[in-house]
Parts: sequence; C-alpha cells; structure tokens
Amino acid sequence: MKQSRTFIPTLREIPSDAEIVSHQLLLRAGFIRQHMSGVYSYLPLAKKVLRKIENIIREEMDAIEAVEVLLPTLQQTDLWEETGRWQTYGQELFRLTDRHDREMALGPTHEEVITSLVRDDVQSYKKLPLTMYQIQTKFRDEKRPRFGLLRGREFIMKDAYSFHSTEESLDVKYNEMLEAYSRIFTRLGLEFRTVLADGGSIGGKSTHEFMALSETGEDTIAFSETSPYAANIEIAEVNIDYAKSSEPMRELEKVETPKKKTIVDVATFLNVDPSKIIKTIIFRADDELCAVIVRGDHDINEIKLRKALSVSELNLASESEIEKTLSCKVGTIGPVKLPLEIKVYADNAVKEIVNGICGANEDDFHLKNVNPERDFAVDKYLDLRFIKEGDLSPDGNGTIRFAKGIELGHTFKLGVSYSEAMKATYLDENGNSQHFVMGCYGIGVSRILAAIAEQYNDANGLKWPKKLAPYDIHLITINMNDEIQTKLSNELYHLLKTYRYDILHDDRDERAGVKFTDADLIGLPVRITIGKMAQDGMVEVKFRETGETVVWQKEEITEKLQSFFN
Amino acid sequence: MKQSRTFIPTLREIPSDAEIVSHQLLLRAGFIRQHMSGVYSYLPLAKKVLRKIENIIREEMDAIEAVEVLLPTLQQTDLWEETGRWQTYGQELFRLTDRHDREMALGPTHEEVITSLVRDDVQSYKKLPLTMYQIQTKFRDEKRPRFGLLRGREFIMKDAYSFHSTEESLDVKYNEMLEAYSRIFTRLGLEFRTVLADGGSIGGKSTHEFMALSETGEDTIAFSETSPYAANIEIAEVNIDYAKSSEPMRELEKVETPKKKTIVDVATFLNVDPSKIIKTIIFRADDELCAVIVRGDHDINEIKLRKALSVSELNLASESEIEKTLSCKVGTIGPVKLPLEIKVYADNAVKEIVNGICGANEDDFHLKNVNPERDFAVDKYLDLRFIKEGDLSPDGNGTIRFAKGIELGHTFKLGVSYSEAMKATYLDENGNSQHFVMGCYGIGVSRILAAIAEQYNDANGLKWPKKLAPYDIHLITINMNDEIQTKLSNELYHLLKTYRYDILHDDRDERAGVKFTDADLIGLPVRITIGKMAQDGMVEVKFRETGETVVWQKEEITEKLQSFFN
Repeated sequence: MKQSRTFIPTLREIPSDAEIVSHQLLLRAGFIRQHMSGVYSYLPLAKKVLRKIENIIREEMDAIEAVEVLLPTLQQTDLWEETGRWQTYGQELFRLTDRHDREMALGPTHEEVITSLVRDDVQSYKKLPLTMYQIQTKFRDEKRPRFGLLRGREFIMKDAYSFHSTEESLDVKYNEMLEAYSRIFTRLGLEFRTVLADGGSIGGKSTHEFMALSETGEDTIAFSETSPYAANIEIAEVNIDYAKSSEPMRELEKVETPKKKTIVDVATFLNVDPSKIIKTIIFRADDELCAVIVRGDHDINEIKLRKALSVSELNLASESEIEKTLSCKVGTIGPVKLPLEIKVYADNAVKEIVNGICGANEDDFHLKNVNPERDFAVDKYLDLRFIKEGDLSPDGNGTIRFAKGIELGHTFKLGVSYSEAMKATYLDENGNSQHFVMGCYGIGVSRILAAIAEQYNDANGLKWPKKLAPYDIHLITINMNDEIQTKLSNELYHLLKTYRYDILHDDRDERAGVKFTDADLIGLPVRITIGKMAQDGMVEVKFRETGETVVWQKEEITEKLQSFFN
Repeated sequence: MKQSRTFIPTLREIPSDAEIVSHQLLLRAGFIRQHMSGVYSYLPLAKKVLRKIENIIREEMDAIEAVEVLLPTLQQTDLWEETGRWQTYGQELFRLTDRHDREMALGPTHEEVITSLVRDDVQSYKKLPLTMYQIQTKFRDEKRPRFGLLRGREFIMKDAYSFHSTEESLDVKYNEMLEAYSRIFTRLGLEFRTVLADGGSIGGKSTHEFMALSETGEDTIAFSETSPYAANIEIAEVNIDYAKSSEPMRELEKVETPKKKTIVDVATFLNVDPSKIIKTIIFRADDELCAVIVRGDHDINEIKLRKALSVSELNLASESEIEKTLSCKVGTIGPVKLPLEIKVYADNAVKEIVNGICGANEDDFHLKNVNPERDFAVDKYLDLRFIKEGDLSPDGNGTIRFAKGIELGHTFKLGVSYSEAMKATYLDENGNSQHFVMGCYGIGVSRILAAIAEQYNDANGLKWPKKLAPYDIHLITINMNDEIQTKLSNELYHLLKTYRYDILHDDRDERAGVKFTDADLIGLPVRITIGKMAQDGMVEVKFRETGETVVWQKEEITEKLQSFFN
C-alpha cells in the first residue's frame, strides 16, 4: 500500500487528554481518533490489526466447535424485563425508542437475546451442547469513559455462549474455553495471567478473568510467589490462621484522643501498631444499618461484604444517619455498646485482637484494652477484607504479591440463572423439561489493541509483534524524485509482494527525518530504507524490536527476511 | 463441522409472515431468525455466507486503493446539525440520549463522521485522493420494515467515501468504483444491472444503482431493448417528440358524467382513448397549491416533480383543501378556469393533446374538446411522468421494457455539498483553501444474502453458488449406528479436509428423509451420502444445482470433486 494513498495521520505532540501510553501512541501513530467521549474511529492501521486479532480468535473458537453468529444490536426490552436486568442494569444500558415509541436497548451483552433464540429453536437434549460466538460492536454508557480504548462506550467484543444439559458438560466446555483463551492470548503475544474473579452484573458461580499485565491496568491481581494461585483482589480470599497473642486481657479504659480521627493519627498518638486498632464502619445494607469491623491495617472489601450479606444495595451510611444513631462523628465509632438494632460483622482477623483500641462512640475519645467477645458481641465473623501483599496465599502455598492488570477476557459459569428467569427449557432423554445449563465467555477485542500497545512500545513509538503488525514491512524511499531509488523501490515492492509480505510503501514527498520518525511511531517490525546506497544495489534494514540496523545487498533481501519472519 | 454441534434450525412450514421466497427460505433453512420487526439474528450458516460476501467486497475495494476503517455507530448530533440532516433525515434516524442527557444518533450512513475526520486530519492536496470504506451494521428506523433482510432496521453495509481535489479526480475514482462494483456482483454470481438513479436523502449529482433482477424487487428498472440504457423508473427521463394530431380544434363543451370519477370510467363513458383525457392533480408544494397535469394514460412521477419544482415538501392536497378552493371533489378537477393563485405545471405530452377531456371543476361534469393554450394556460411544460413500457428509450435507441430489481449498491458523486456544509477544506498547490470534492458508495451486504437467495432456489430450497455456499459439501451419514458407514464417513471427512473443503457432516440421529429434506433446504453444492453402499466402498453424490445424482467409488471422490469445483 502506498502511504500517500492511505490515512495515517501521525502527530508530533502527545495529546493532552491521553493519560496512558497506549492511548497516546495509538493517537500519535494515527491508529485511532476520538469521535466523542468513549467513542473512537478505527483508522486503516488499527482496522488491519483488529482483523488479525479477530482471525486468531475465530480460529481458536472454531477449534473448540463454537459456531459464529451475529446477533442484533437493537434488543427487545421484554427480554431484559424477563431477567430483571432492564431495572438492574441501570444507566450503563443505552435505551432508545423507535418511531412507534417502542423502547429498546443497545446491546452491551447478549445473554437475553441468545437465550431467547435457543429457547425458541432448541427443543431436545440431542442438540446440546451448543456453543455460539460473535464478534460485534457493543454499547455501554460508562460513567467515566477513559484510557482510550480501555474503557469506552462503544467497543468491539467477542462474546460466546454455551448451552448444556448437565453441569458436567458445562465444566468440559468451560475448561476448553479457558484453554482456548490461553492459546489466544499467547498467540497474541500478550503477557497475561488467568485469575479467579467476581461475576459482576452478568452473575455466575465460577468466573475467571484474563489479565494483561500492565502498570496502567485498572485491576489489581493478587498472585502467589510460588504457586499458580492468582485472583482479582476483588475476590481473593484471605485464608490465614491468625495467631492469638498470649498477652493477658487488661481492663477497658477510656482515653482522650483530641482531634485524632484517622487510624494513623490514633496509632501514633497512642503509640500502638495499627494492627491493634479495631476499625468500625457503618453501612446501610438494603435499608438496615450494620457495623463492619476490620483491623486497622486492613481494608474492607465491599464486594466480599455484599456477597457475604447477600444484599443488593450496599452503601456507606451517611454522616447524618450516623450522628442521629450514635451521636458521634465518623472518626470515633467503635463496636462497644452499639445500639442493639445495629448488626455487627467482623473480619476473621478481628477475633484474635487482644487489648485493642477502638472509637468510644463519643467525639475525641477512644477505648483502650478492648477485647472482642468480652467487650462487644459480634453477630458473625467473616472474610471481609482485601488480601494484602505479604499475606499467605489462599492456597496455602507462598506469599501474595500484587500486579496491575488490564482485563482482556472473562468467563462465567452461569448455570441455570438465565434459563430459569427466561423459562428456557429442553426435553431430556426421558422427555422431561429441564432448564439449559449455560456458560458465557467474553473477550475485549478493541481493548486487546490497547493492551498490545501498552506492552509493545518504547520512547519512539509502537513495536508491533510480527503476527499482529498492520504491515510486515515499511519500505521507505528517501527521494521519490531519484530515478534509481524509485526503480529499486518498485522492484522490491513487487518482489516482496510475491513472497506475500504486506508492505507499507512510504512514497510521500517528505523529508527523510519525517519518514523515519513516522516509521518508528507506527512500529512495523522491519523498515527497509532505499536511499543513496541504491546505486550500489544496497538497502538499509532496521528491526524495530531491537533497533538493530544492517545493510543488505538487494539479492539477499528475500532470504534474510524469510529467516527473520520464520 | 458436525451438524449436531452447530445451530441450523430448519422449519417444515412456510412462516406465515414471510411474503417473498428469500425470506421464507432463509427462515426455513435456518439461516436467520427475526428478533423484532426489521431486526434479525444471523445464524451460523448466514454468518459464513456473509463473511464470504464481505471478503469478495474487501478484495475489490483493496484493489482500487480504498482503505478499510471502522467508524462509530454512535454519532454526534453536532455534525448532523452542520449538514442540516438532523432535521431533514426525519424519523428514519434513530436518536437517543446518554446518561448525561446528550443527544446522539445511531449511524444510518457516515458522510458526516468521515467528513469531520478528514476535515480534522487532512490539510494538504498531497494527501488526496483518499478513499476509505467500512463494513458495518447500520441503523434506519424504517416505517415499514419488510421482506426479511431486504428492508430492515438494522442491516450490514459496505460504505465507502472518497475525497478529491478536483472533479476529474472524482470522475476517475467514481468510474473505478463502478467497475469494482460490477466485478463484485459478477463474482457474487448475481444477475444484475447498473442503472441511473435518484440521489435520495444522500444527495449528489450523478448516481448509479446496481440492481439484482428479481420479481420481488421493490424497484422498477426501465431498460432499452437494444441499447445499454437502464435507469430506475424514478428518474428515467421521457424523451419523446409527441406527434400533434391534425384534427381541427372543436368547440369546448360541458357534458354530464354522472358518478364517473376514474380515468377509465370517463374514457369508457365518453368512448375515447385514455390518452385523450387531461388528468389534473392538486399538490401542496412547500405550502403552495399547484395543479399538475398529465395525460390520462400517464402517471405522475413525484420524484421528477419534486426536483423540477425544487421543493422539499410535496404532498397531495387534502380533500378539504380542494373542496375549499375549487368547490368540487377530486374526480372532476380540470385545468380550465382554475383560481389564478394555483400554478399549473403540465407534462410535455399534454401540449400536443387536441380536443381532450378534463374535469369541469363541478361534480358530475366534464369538459370536451379541451385544448391547451386555447382553454387553459400552463405555467411550465416539464418532464413529469413515469416512463412506460413501449416508450422510446431516452437515449433514442430502442424501446423501453421494465424489470423488477433489488437495490444492491448505490454510488453518488457528492461534489462539494457536504464539504461546504461542514466547512471541510484543504490547501491546494498554491496554498489556497478549497473544499473537498467527494463521492460516496454503498453496498447492502446483508441484502445481498437475500438477493442471492432470491436468484438461487427451487421448490425444495436454496441452491448456493459454489463460491458463496456456507459449506462446500454436505456429508450425510444415513445410519450413525452402522460402523461401516461411520468409519467411511470419518475417513472421508478427514480426507476431504486435507483438500481444504469445508464440510457440514450430518451426524444427527435422524431419519434419512429428514436429512435429505434439510440438505435440499440448506442447498450446499454437493451432497455426499454414505449409506448401505458403504460396504462396497461407494457413495451417492448429488449436485444441488442440477439435481443430478451419481454413484462414486470412494477412491475417485477427490479427483471428481476437484473437477466439479474448479
């Protein structure tokens, strides 16, 4: 392709609104442009990479007998009413009405649509298992679209759905899918981890995420230094037998702590370790207030809390609610002598605190030598805190470390939650009606583009892995008015075409410096420069990954390229 | 692919709401399902055909240096305000608001988006010409979605846009595009015609349509029996020198025509040819009433009328408006003694009528011996009627015949209409700011699926052309419990795979009759049946196109298949 005939609007400046490197480079190298907040145009280079990503995904989906479909973007509200998600999906669901004032949704995901399809057209166990996938533009009205393609409102996904007659059949397909996902991300050249995860609004019993490791990731992964354990910290269990101190219990004592409100303030003032402090937070959980207690050096994990309490609404109690109920401010709440109507839930670590410190439910006062059970009752001990670096790995093997990740894929064992809600059944071998057992499996296709850009770049620009590069070779003619150079360029272009290389030919009337800067920014694996040495039948070859530059005779180009690309 | 593991829900009955054969067969053969009015799911077989169609389109677009992009579906209203189409596009434009109450549109077409992109990032003539295309789902809130994939509200299109510095450059690309389109539809195996067309809401000076010939087409093509002339009847010019009768003018006479209202009634009652009747229709054109006159055997073409009058709103006057202004009913309107404020436009054919008949503007009366100019004035004679079969071809060569067509593609020379409206300019060789000269070019991708189904079928089902068939071969094992049959089936399946055939293997536990009926319905080019003859190493082969059935030895299968497919 002649560079003069395609559309690669490179930028010299870093766009001011692009915070992370993938967003900056995809804009600067002319891969994408923002149309509006969270909505992008994919320019020719990006579209070529997307097609390569999609083809790898297709090959791996086909290999596990998943069949490709294309489901509607415009979705019936009736189906969303059946699953209750018309209400619960909230503002992230784009809603619109047609000319006849009928409401509909723009698909952010397709559980409802595909379950309705299978409900209508699959009657017998003989047609199961059945796995379908699609690669499609999805819509989600994100509150804060950001980081370019990482969190957009219009994005490309591969979503797959499997239907089964038994849990065992789902388990088999689920594992095949996990393996296919690993192959996909490996083939894409991404450094990634498979982690245990939370189901979010899709739901599901067992779920995994595939995370590209990246400093700019929005997710934190907890992994064991020595075992394969890895989980999103949102769900990583804490599995520790806390040692109980042999220190004798001392008498409860009230101390003045003027204007000391934070854990650090109080610990410093009283000269104790934060682990001695009993931190109490009041939540409103489905219209009831409750107190949640963790150690001062621990943080409450609201996802765990929400699950443990089985509530759908969970919010911090407001200051006015607290002052009304406890007659004190947020900084001095403690579990001793709380009103009886407030249930108390404590993290497991709290149980083993001896002679701890807590707020006195009176401004500017704390209690010393507080001991659980003796000084306050706990309705339930639960795993309520975030895992920490240095904790024992939940599988008992090794120490936990953290890494940042970009979610690339997500798999869910849905079970019968959707088929029950939507009354989707088949007849089993005995002629009995049964609900479909389901799984669903997503990959963020446009997000992969950004994840690769995050992992493959340097100060000068992008560095595409060979299999995903928009073109294999950047052929640069220094002087398009020099007959020797243009003749060699054309010869080489056509020769390399016969070897099936995809070539971007910089035929522009630009200075060499501009061409080289653009080439580094775009980041094709091989740059072949045809300049003054053309008169001696020589070209300069630069490898983007290593920066190595060599001079080749024109006769040896094809052989050497083959050895590089294979 | 095992048929038991994919999703091909065939139907025995013709769905009651499917009026045309492509819609019926695509539903019955399990290619598509309706999600809601005008919105379809593409099931695995359809998705495979769509990909083949898309690949042919991509190859031909790439061959003329068009580069692929993917533009947003969610579109800024600001851009639509710039071109005025936010108002004029009307109810066909799906509109929605996001969580911040900002309005946006779902893209039915992308002139605005791409012009804004090029406006922002193309500053110099050096980057022109530039042609970009995309293959994408589009949205249009059709008043009456119908005919399955032919007129939907969510559909797949290839849309291309070209930007130029001169009209000549546009002409070159436009012709390349016409040729590329012809190659595409030829490769797709469609019987089609390239016809002159109307620009519709996209606008443009010169436009062509590509029409698949089909009895169920919504468009009518007028073509010459002897020349290459072909046009949509919406715009086909009438180019006839009407012979003036030598009959002497007679005296105007008022005759009673009780309850005779239609042309046929009046012509029969007065015993004259309908061509003698002067038909008068009152329109409201941009808030002014006007009378439009054609011969009784001719029909008014409202598209020609709208263009000739340069009005944006054109409607038939209401009965009450007519009665108020003329004091008579619709059936007896005539041009004689019309109120002066009503302008009169007549078709060219009217000029040559001698001693015609027209309504008397008085219920139950007509006038005889009416002569234009003598008895009524005409503000303007224009080409206002539809061309008819039997008319002289507008190019002066041959007689006009009609055919029905399905619009597959549409090309437009837009000129500077969009770039002027959106102030999209580049700097020319002299540093002067100039508006981009533009073209745009569409193909209905999902509509092609239906058009092929229209042209390739028989009473038993679909008959896919080799290059587009979802699979090459339907391998049918009659008895999946017979070891000899399954062994030969598996051997053959794997052997044919190595020859790169794409095979659908009917491994279902169904009766032979069911399998054969489904195979005919689905319509793959070759059916290989493995039944009792398997024990003698023989298979039955049926060609869907011809219905021919032969018996082959297993050893000769690959060679014979190759000769069929090449």
